[in-house]
Amino acid sequence: MKTATEYLESLARMKHRVFMGGRQLERPWEDTQIRTGAAVIALTYELAGQPEMAELMTAKSHLSGKQINRFTHIHQSPDDLYRKLRMTRECCRHTLCIQRCMGIDALNALSIVTHQVDQVAGTSYHRRFNEYLEHFQEEDLTGNAAMTDVKGDRSLRPHQQADLYLHVVERTDQGIVVRGAKAHNTNAPYAHELIVLPTREMTEADADYAVAFATPADAPGITMICRSAAPREPRQGSRPLSSRYSTVESVTVFDNVFVPWERVFLCGEWQAAGYLAELFATYHRHSYCGCKPAISEVLLGCAALAADYNGVEKASHIRSKLTELVVAAEMVHACGIAASVQGKATPAGTWLPDTVYANVGKYYSGTTLHHEYELVHDIAGGLVATMPPEQDFTAPETAPYLEKYLRGRAEVSAADRVRCFRLIEDITASAMAGLLLVAGVHGGGSPEAEKITILRQYDVAARKELARRLAGIKPA
Amino acid sequence: MKTATEYLESLARMKHRVFMGGRQLERPWEDTQIRTGAAVIALTYELAGQPEMAELMTAKSHLSGKQINRFTHIHQSPDDLYRKLRMTRECCRHTLCIQRCMGIDALNALSIVTHQVDQVAGTSYHRRFNEYLEHFQEEDLTGNAAMTDVKGDRSLRPHQQADLYLHVVERTDQGIVVRGAKAHNTNAPYAHELIVLPTREMTEADADYAVAFATPADAPGITMICRSAAPREPRQGSRPLSSRYSTVESVTVFDNVFVPWERVFLCGEWQAAGYLAELFATYHRHSYCGCKPAISEVLLGCAALAADYNGVEKASHIRSKLTELVVAAEMVHACGIAASVQGKATPAGTWLPDTVYANVGKYYSGTTLHHEYELVHDIAGGLVATMPPEQDFTAPETAPYLEKYLRGRAEVSAADRVRCFRLIEDITASAMAGLLLVAGVHGGGSPEAEKITILRQYDVAARKELARRLAGIKPA
Amino acid sequence: MKTATEYLESLARMKHRVFMGGRQLERPWEDTQIRTGAAVIALTYELAGQPEMAELMTAKSHLSGKQINRFTHIHQSPDDLYRKLRMTRECCRHTLCIQRCMGIDALNALSIVTHQVDQVAGTSYHRRFNEYLEHFQEEDLTGNAAMTDVKGDRSLRPHQQADLYLHVVERTDQGIVVRGAKAHNTNAPYAHELIVLPTREMTEADADYAVAFATPADAPGITMICRSAAPREPRQGSRPLSSRYSTVESVTVFDNVFVPWERVFLCGEWQAAGYLAELFATYHRHSYCGCKPAISEVLLGCAALAADYNGVEKASHIRSKLTELVVAAEMVHACGIAASVQGKATPAGTWLPDTVYANVGKYYSGTTLHHEYELVHDIAGGLVATMPPEQDFTAPETAPYLEKYLRGRAEVSAADRVRCFRLIEDITASAMAGLLLVAGVHGGGSPEAEKITILRQYDVAARKELARRLAGIKPA
Amino acid sequence: MKTATEYLESLARMKHRVFMGGRQLERPWEDTQIRTGAAVIALTYELAGQPEMAELMTAKSHLSGKQINRFTHIHQSPDDLYRKLRMTRECCRHTLCIQRCMGIDALNALSIVTHQVDQVAGTSYHRRFNEYLEHFQEEDLTGNAAMTDVKGDRSLRPHQQADLYLHVVERTDQGIVVRGAKAHNTNAPYAHELIVLPTREMTEADADYAVAFATPADAPGITMICRSAAPREPRQGSRPLSSRYSTVESVTVFDNVFVPWERVFLCGEWQAAGYLAELFATYHRHSYCGCKPAISEVLLGCAALAADYNGVEKASHIRSKLTELVVAAEMVHACGIAASVQGKATPAGTWLPDTVYANVGKYYSGTTLHHEYELVHDIAGGLVATMPPEQDFTAPETAPYLEKYLRGRAEVSAADRVRCFRLIEDITASAMAGLLLVAGVHGGGSPEAEKITILRQYDVAARKELARRLAGIKPA
Repeated sequence: MKTATEYLESLARMKHRVFMGGRQLERPWEDTQIRTGAAVIALTYELAGQPEMAELMTAKSHLSGKQINRFTHIHQSPDDLYRKLRMTRECCRHTLCIQRCMGIDALNALSIVTHQVDQVAGTSYHRRFNEYLEHFQEEDLTGNAAMTDVKGDRSLRPHQQADLYLHVVERTDQGIVVRGAKAHNTNAPYAHELIVLPTREMTEADADYAVAFATPADAPGITMICRSAAPREPRQGSRPLSSRYSTVESVTVFDNVFVPWERVFLCGEWQAAGYLAELFATYHRHSYCGCKPAISEVLLGCAALAADYNGVEKASHIRSKLTELVVAAEMVHACGIAASVQGKATPAGTWLPDTVYANVGKYYSGTTLHHEYELVHDIAGGLVATMPPEQDFTAPETAPYLEKYLRGRAEVSAADRVRCFRLIEDITASAMAGLLLVAGVHGGGSPEAEKITILRQYDVAARKELARRLAGIKPA
Repeated sequence: MKTATEYLESLARMKHRVFMGGRQLERPWEDTQIRTGAAVIALTYELAGQPEMAELMTAKSHLSGKQINRFTHIHQSPDDLYRKLRMTRECCRHTLCIQRCMGIDALNALSIVTHQVDQVAGTSYHRRFNEYLEHFQEEDLTGNAAMTDVKGDRSLRPHQQADLYLHVVERTDQGIVVRGAKAHNTNAPYAHELIVLPTREMTEADADYAVAFATPADAPGITMICRSAAPREPRQGSRPLSSRYSTVESVTVFDNVFVPWERVFLCGEWQAAGYLAELFATYHRHSYCGCKPAISEVLLGCAALAADYNGVEKASHIRSKLTELVVAAEMVHACGIAASVQGKATPAGTWLPDTVYANVGKYYSGTTLHHEYELVHDIAGGLVATMPPEQDFTAPETAPYLEKYLRGRAEVSAADRVRCFRLIEDITASAMAGLLLVAGVHGGGSPEAEKITILRQYDVAARKELARRLAGIKPA
Repeated sequence: MKTATEYLESLARMKHRVFMGGRQLERPWEDTQIRTGAAVIALTYELAGQPEMAELMTAKSHLSGKQINRFTHIHQSPDDLYRKLRMTRECCRHTLCIQRCMGIDALNALSIVTHQVDQVAGTSYHRRFNEYLEHFQEEDLTGNAAMTDVKGDRSLRPHQQADLYLHVVERTDQGIVVRGAKAHNTNAPYAHELIVLPTREMTEADADYAVAFATPADAPGITMICRSAAPREPRQGSRPLSSRYSTVESVTVFDNVFVPWERVFLCGEWQAAGYLAELFATYHRHSYCGCKPAISEVLLGCAALAADYNGVEKASHIRSKLTELVVAAEMVHACGIAASVQGKATPAGTWLPDTVYANVGKYYSGTTLHHEYELVHDIAGGLVATMPPEQDFTAPETAPYLEKYLRGRAEVSAADRVRCFRLIEDITASAMAGLLLVAGVHGGGSPEAEKITILRQYDVAARKELARRLAGIKPA
Repeated sequence: MKTATEYLESLARMKHRVFMGGRQLERPWEDTQIRTGAAVIALTYELAGQPEMAELMTAKSHLSGKQINRFTHIHQSPDDLYRKLRMTRECCRHTLCIQRCMGIDALNALSIVTHQVDQVAGTSYHRRFNEYLEHFQEEDLTGNAAMTDVKGDRSLRPHQQADLYLHVVERTDQGIVVRGAKAHNTNAPYAHELIVLPTREMTEADADYAVAFATPADAPGITMICRSAAPREPRQGSRPLSSRYSTVESVTVFDNVFVPWERVFLCGEWQAAGYLAELFATYHRHSYCGCKPAISEVLLGCAALAADYNGVEKASHIRSKLTELVVAAEMVHACGIAASVQGKATPAGTWLPDTVYANVGKYYSGTTLHHEYELVHDIAGGLVATMPPEQDFTAPETAPYLEKYLRGRAEVSAADRVRCFRLIEDITASAMAGLLLVAGVHGGGSPEAEKITILRQYDVAARKELARRLAGIKPA
C-alpha cells in the first residue's frame, strides 16, 4: 500500500493536461486548488496506514491474498459492504466527500458486468479486468469514474447526436480509439486512472457508445477543463475546511484517445450498458449512505456549537431542530446498513448492495439536504452570512470593535465564536456550499432516476397480490 | 407450543371481566368484536405451526432449550432481533397489527431491568422473572402490556394525583395489592396475562407507583372497559379486513388487585422506573419498524391495484406517488434492520436494539403515516369515500346500475373493483382508519417522546467536537 | 327568500327516488341520515334570515334587483367574490361543509359559458339561462352540481365507452333525453335541482357528451344510490357533529331523463365543455378557500381545547403545532382573498376569481389536510381513538371508573373532557373523517388537476424572459 | 424626487466611515462592491421617474400633498399597502432584494409608536417625527433600518450585558449620546440616514436600551464594518446578477454618537420598545410578501429556461416541479394581498397590514426557500455547480471543446446555455446564494419569532369556544 506522500509523489510523475481559469497548469499538483483536492485522496492513504483504522480501511485481496487499501477492493461479503460504508462515513467526517469511492465503485460494477458479458457473448473481459485489477491493487491506484456524458439535447439518444457522448471511433489490432466528453467529472486531475463507463442504457444503434475501459489519466488526447469551489488563495481563517480539503470537477475531453485492448472492458455489447450504469449507480448510492450521514453529523456539530455559543442550546425549538438533523443522518445510514446486510452475491462472486435500500437511502438524502441547510441556518442565525471578512478581525481600527461586539456567552471568546461561524459559512453559505447542495441532489444520479430505479426494482406485483388477498379478490 | 385452536379454547376457560357498549360480556370470546381481536392473536399460533415459517416464528428458549413461539422469546443475539423484526412484518401483512409483540416487548424489558435492580439493590427479581418466563414459554401464553397510565393533569407527577396512576396500596407477606387504571390498553380481553409496567420515570415520592408485575388477565378486581373499531355485525363484503382482524382497546381498571410476590418484578425501586419504561419503548419502537412497513406495503398494494383498475397505473404522477409509498415502507424497515444489526448485549444477556435507530424508525413512521394515507387517497380517488353501501350492490333496483356504472377498465369486473375500494375504505376511511392513524402517531410513544429519546441517546458532544476540530477551535 | 322551515317543507313535496342500504326511502326527508344532510342546507336559509348576517348571506340580484340569498347570486364584483368567500367560511364553522356552494358555483360557470357560446355559435343559451336563474333566485332554490361522470377506464375518452358518461340519447322538439351516471354527487336527495355539467374537455366525437342542463331532482328517470358517513341512529353524545350535520353522496343515475329545451344550457358544442368544466372548478376551488380554513379552525379549536384539558397547552411543542394549524388555515384563506381581489370581469358580466390563486389555495389545502389531522392526533393523544363507547359512561358498573380515571386537569370535568375527545373522534377518527380527508384531496378536483391548471394559467414564458434578461441572453 | 444620478452624487458628498477587508474605504461610493449595492437603491430612484411605473412607485404625501417616492411614504389606506407590495415585487424582479424597504418600514412603525407614546406619556415625539419625515420626503432620502443588536448571550437581557446592545449613555439639553452595535445591518454605507430601533421588548431595567432615532449615516462615531457577497472584480460573464446588483451588510458601531433631540423618537419609554419592534417586523414581513415572490419568479424562470435548453421542459416531473415553484411564489404573495386588504388604521392614521397574514407569509417563505433551491438544482442539473470558469470559454485550447460539448438542444447556442447556468450558479450556488438563503430564513425575523407572533395575535380562544359549541360543552 502507498503512503500519502508516495501518492502525492506519484502524481508529480504524471502529465495530466489540466486547464483552469483559461490557462494550462504546467504542474497541476502544485496548484493550490488541485492540492486541496489531492489532499482528500491523500487522506485515504494516510488513514489506511493507521493501525486503529486498519479494520475499516484495508481488506484482503481476493486475487492476491494481500492486504490492500479497501478503496481498491472488490466486495466479497455483506461484511465488506458494511465496512466500506463505515469507512466512507469515517473518512467523510474529515472531508465531507472522500472522492476515491468513485473509482472503486466503478470497478466493482465492472467486475460483475465483465463476467456477465463473457457468459453471454463468449468474450474475455473478466480475465482482462482481473489482470488490470491486480495491477490496480498492487500499485494502490486511485481511479476516478468518468461516467456522465455531456448529454446535449436530452430528448435525443447518443447516436442521434453523433459526436457528443463518448464513443469508439476506430478499432485496431492493438485497441480502440475513443472520442467524446464526460461532464461533472470529479477528481480527474489527481487520479492515476480514469475508469470510463457508459452513462445509460443503449440501443443497438448506440453500440459504439457502449464502451467501458480504464486509461491512465494522462494519456495523450485527454484534456481536463476544471473548476474548483475551493478558494484560490487559501487562508484557513477564512475558509477553514475548503482551504484544506476540496474537490475539482472537470469537463474531461477525450479527443481520439487510444486504449489498448487489455484495458477495454466493454465494447459494443450495447445490451449490457444499462446494467453497467445501474450497477455503478447502486454502488455509488450505497457510498452516499456513508458520506451523507457524515455531512449531516458535521452540520449537526456546527449547529449545536453555534447554539451553545449563542447560549440557546437548551431551547426547546433548538433541540427539536437538532434532533431533525440526527434523524436525517441516521435514516440515510440505516439504509446503507440495510443495503449491506441484505446485499446479494452475483455470479462473478462480487457482492452487490440491495438496490432498493441503496436507492432509497440516496433518494432520501438527496431530497433532505437542502432542508438540513435550512435547519442549520435557522439554528445558527444571520451571522452565517453577514460576518465581516477575516482581515477586519486583525485591522487595528476594527478588531477591537469586533472582539467586543461579536462575542456570545461569556465563557466563549469572540475568536472561537467567529471560527465556528466561519466554518458554517464555509460549508453552508459559499461556492462550496453550492457544490455540496447540487452534488447532494445529483451525485450518483438524480432523485428522479432513483425513484425510477426503486419502483422498477420493487416487487409491486406481490403487493398488489397482497391487496387482492385481503380484499377477497381472486389472484390475478 | 399451542395451536390456534388451543389458544381460543384456553380463552374460553378464563373469566375476563369485560364491558363494552354499556353491558358486561358474559362470554367475551363469543362476542364478534372480541373474536376479530382474538383472531389476530390466533394467527400467531397458526403461523408458528407452519414449517416454512418456523425459522421466523419460533426460537430456542435460552432457559429450557425447547423450541418456542418467538413471541415468548428473550432475544439472545442480533439475529434474534432481526428475525423478530421480519416476523412482525410478515404477520402484519395479514392483519396490519399483530398485537402479541406488546407482551414480549414488555418481558424483554423486564429481563434486563430485573437483572439490573438485583445487582444494585440485592433483590431477587431476576430469578422470579425467569421462573415466570419459563412458565410463560412452556404454556405459550399471550401477554398484553399494560403500560400507559391515565395521566390526568399531565403537568402533575403521579403522587400529586394520588389515586390515578396504578400503584401499590398494600404490601403483605404473600404479595401486593394495586390500584389504578391503564389506558389505551390493547388486546387485554383476549390475553392470558397482563404485563404491567410503569409509564415513565419516577421520583422518590412516586415510589409506590414504581411497580411492575404479571397477573392473569382475569384476576379478581380487573375490569376492562373496551372499544373496538371493528364492525359490530361483521359482513366481509362491507369491511373485508376489519371484519376478520381487528383490535380491542380498553381502559383496564385495577381495583385492589392482589399480586403474589413471585409475579412482582419491581416494587418501589423508583430509580429503575424510567429505564424500564424506556427499554419497553425501545423494544416496541423496534417492533414498529416491522409492522409499519407491512402497513405501507398494504397501502401500496391497494393504491397500485386501484390505479390498475382505473387504467392509470402507468401515469407518471401515479408512479411517483407509488414510489413514495415504497420509500416510506423501506426507510422504516431499514431503521429496524440497523437497530437489529447494531443491537447490544446487556448484562442480563438480553440483546437490546440500538436505541437511536429504533426511535428514528418509529419517529419517521409516526410522522409519515398520514401522508401515506394522503397518497392512497390521491391515487385511488373519491370512490374510497363515496361508494354506496354493500346492500345496494345486491338490491334488484340498484345492482344493475352499480354493476354498469362502477366498473373500471374492461378487463376488470365491477365487483372486483368494488372489493378493492371497499378494502381501501376499510383501511383508510373508517373508524378503524382513525385507530390506525392515531396508533401510528402515539403507539409506542409520541413523536415528541421519540425526539427527546433520540437527542438524549445521541452523542451530540462528539459532533460538536468534530465541528471544533474542523473549525480550528481547541477541544473543549 | 325561503326560511329553513319552508325549505324543509318544500322537500317533503318532492318525490326524490332515493336508495340507501339496499332499499328505497319512501319519504327520504324523514330518514335520519338524509335529515342531517338537509340540516346543513337548512342552515343556509336560517342564517340568511339573521340581520347581522345579511351583509354576507344576501345580495341584490342583478336580474330582479331583489334581495336574494347569496347562494343564488351571480357575482357582480370582486366584493361579491370576497363576501361569498367569507360567507362560506362563516357557514362552515358550524358544519365543516356547507354543500350549497356547489349549485351556485355551477350556475356562475354557466352564466359565463352560455354567454360565450351564444357569441360564437349564435345560440340563445344565455337568455334561457337568465330566465331559469330568475326563477331559481325567486324560489330560493338549492341546486347540486352533478359533474363528475363515472369514468370507467380513464385512459379512454367518453365516446369510447359509449353508455357510461352522461350524454344525449335523443333530441326532440320539446327537449333532450339523457342517459348516464354521475358519481361522488353531493346533496342530491335534498336539493331542488340538479345542475348538470360535463366533467372534462371533449373532442368532436364526444359531442353528445357535451351537455349541460338543469332538472328538478325528482324528475322521472333519476335514481340516487346514496351513502352517508353520518351515524344511522344519531346520538349526539356519540357523534356530536355528524349526528346533526352531515352529507349524503350518491351515484346519481340518469336513465333516459327528459329535459325541456328551456333548461338546456349546452348541447353538442363540444368546444366549450372543457372551459365550462374549468370555470366550475375555479369557482369551486375558490369556495374551498372559504370552507377549508373553517375546518382548520375547528381542528385548531379541538386541539387547543384537548391540550388545555390535558394541562399541556403551554408546552413549547404544542404551541408550535397549534401555530402550524393557524398557518394551514390562513394560507388557504389568503389565497381566497387574493383570488377575490384579483378576480376579473368576464364578457357576460360575471366576475371570475383569479384562476391561479383559486387553484393554489385548493391545491395547498388538499395537500395539507392529512398533515393537519396528524397535528391534531399528535396534540390530543391516543384517547381520540381508544375512548370507550358512550354507553359505558352511563352504565352503573363502569361509569364511576370512567368518571374517575378519564379526567384531565382538576378544573375540568371528565364529562367535558370526554365531550371534547368525542368531537375530535367524530371529526378525525370516524367514517366521516374518511370522507373529509378524501373530499379534502379530491373535492373540486384532484391536486394533479390543480397543478396542471396552475401551470397552464401561469405566464411561465414571462418568467423565462425575466431569466433571459438577468442572464444577459437576447430575448427569445 | 431625486433621480438615480442625484442619489449617487449625494452619496459622494457624504463621509461614511466604511471598513471592508481590513482597510478603510476612503471613497466608498467608488468601491466596486459598494457600488453594486448602491445600484440597487439607485434603481428605486430611476423607476420612480418612469411614467408607466408612477402609479406604483410614487404616492402623494399626507403631510405636504406633494408627489413623493413611495419608498418615503406613510401608508394611508389598504390600497397604499397593496401598491407597496406590488412595487416591492416589481423592483425585486430586477434585483431580488430592493433594500430601500427597510428604512420606510422603520418610519411607518415609528409613525405609529411616536403617536401612541405621546398619548400615554405626554411626549411630543410624533410632531418631531413628522417634521423629520417631511424633510425625509422632500429630500427623497434613503434610510436603512438599524435594528438587530449584537445580542451576545441570548439568555441575558440587554442591561445584563451592559455595553453590548445599543443604548443611551448620556442625555444633554441638545440631545443624547448613544453607544453599541447593530449587526446584520443592510445598506448602511450607501444610505443617507440610519433609522435606529430597539430590537425587542424591554423591561424597566432596560430603559436606556429603549431608544429610537434617526441619524445621518456619516455622523461622527459611526463605523461600518462591512462585507459583501458580490464579486470583488465584477465580470458580468461570471456573475451576471451579483456583478450588477448586490447588498452590503455591516456591523454598524455607534461609538458615543450624538443625536439631537429633534431626531430622537423614543428614549426610555421601555413599555413601547416591544411594540415598536413588532410593528417594524410586521411592515417588513409584509415587504417580504412582495420580494420573495419575485425571487421565486426568477428561480422559476431560471429553472424553466434550463429545462428548455436541456430539451426536457415538457417532462412530467419537470412540470410538476415548476408548478411547485409557482405555488411557492403565489402563496406568499397571496398572504401579502390578504395582509393589505385586511390592514387596519391605527390611531396615528397610518395603516398597518394584518399581522397574522404578514407573519404567515414571511414564515412560509422563510421555510420554503431552501426547498425552492432544491427544486431549481433538481431541474437544472449538475452543471449549476460544475461549469468551468468563464475564462476557459475564451482560451483557445479550451473554448472549442466547451463550445462543442456544453450545448443543449440544437436551437440553442452553447453560449446562451452557459449564460443561463451562470445565472443559476450566481443565484443558487455562490456566496450570494448563501446570503439569500440565510436572509430568507432570518430577514425580518426568524421563523420561530414569526410563529410566536402568529399564535399571540391569533384568537385561539374563539376557536376553542367554537370547539366547545360543536362538542356541546358549556361556554367557558
